[in-house]
Amino acid sequence: MSEEQKKFMREAISLSLESVNLGGGPFGAVIVKDGKRIAGSANSVTRDVDPTAHAEVNVIRKACKVLDTFDLSGCEIYTSCEPCPMCLAAIYWARIDVIYYGNTKEDARKIGFDDQFIYDEIATDREKRKIMAIPFMHEESIVSFEMWDKKENKIKY
Amino acid sequence: MSEEQKKFMREAISLSLESVNLGGGPFGAVIVKDGKRIAGSANSVTRDVDPTAHAEVNVIRKACKVLDTFDLSGCEIYTSCEPCPMCLAAIYWARIDVIYYGNTKEDARKIGFDDQFIYDEIATDREKRKIMAIPFMHEESIVSFEMWDKKENKIKY
Repeated sequence: MSEEQKKFMREAISLSLESVNLGGGPFGAVIVKDGKRIAGSANSVTRDVDPTAHAEVNVIRKACKVLDTFDLSGCEIYTSCEPCPMCLAAIYWARIDVIYYGNTKEDARKIGFDDQFIYDEIATDREKRKIMAIPFMHEESIVSFEMWDKKENKIKY
Repeated sequence: MSEEQKKFMREAISLSLESVNLGGGPFGAVIVKDGKRIAGSANSVTRDVDPTAHAEVNVIRKACKVLDTFDLSGCEIYTSCEPCPMCLAAIYWARIDVIYYGNTKEDARKIGFDDQFIYDEIATDREKRKIMAIPFMHEESIVSFEMWDKKENKIKY
């Protein structure tokens, strides 16, 4: 890895350290495009009272604002810990090219984070998961899908 | 299902229809606690230029603001479509009790959304996924985990 890449990862790590000092979760992430730093963020779940405010989700939101797009193709993410399933899926939706990660989900489990449990749940059939998912009112729900499908000039994402 | 529950689902569906009319994705969701509606939101990916702004993530963020907590234990979510993996994981992090969903991820695939692809990717070993995940600087990254682990009186989430 290049010195530039180490610098980006060090910022992600530094954000994770700063977050612990501020009373937040030990996670930080940086997004880079064409060798240029676009945005950085720590986890802010407890500070922002928002369970979705993981470092990767936060930094994706920031980078999208900076670049004025919801498509981060061509970007790389440097994250102090392997993304949880929420963040990994967010990385897919954002179309980020590469993930560099420091700690692993196994490390995260050792200090009390549920990443591995949620990975297992997502890989389980919906009928067998711990959180019950109940199908309801399909006939009325499908109408908006039909409208979307027929719509011309829609902004796909 | 009760008439009350149908009313909550109809709001989620109504948000999904309104979203299509406004040029957004066909998804809406409502969060309920103790039979009381807490918050509702549509998908706003294109309007907010934010790939994480799915209906469920949006409504979780709103409900947490309303209830001033990152823990939505005791809440139910009514969503016009089965959650994608990002939203499902967000529901786990938020500790929501039950999911009621209208359309399925199979319906979503038919109109061009990648939910099933991302489900498959998340269930795949990290070494074999389409987005490369490269381990990097573990020794420096683990320090914030050690700090978190040793910290007393931390706010767990």
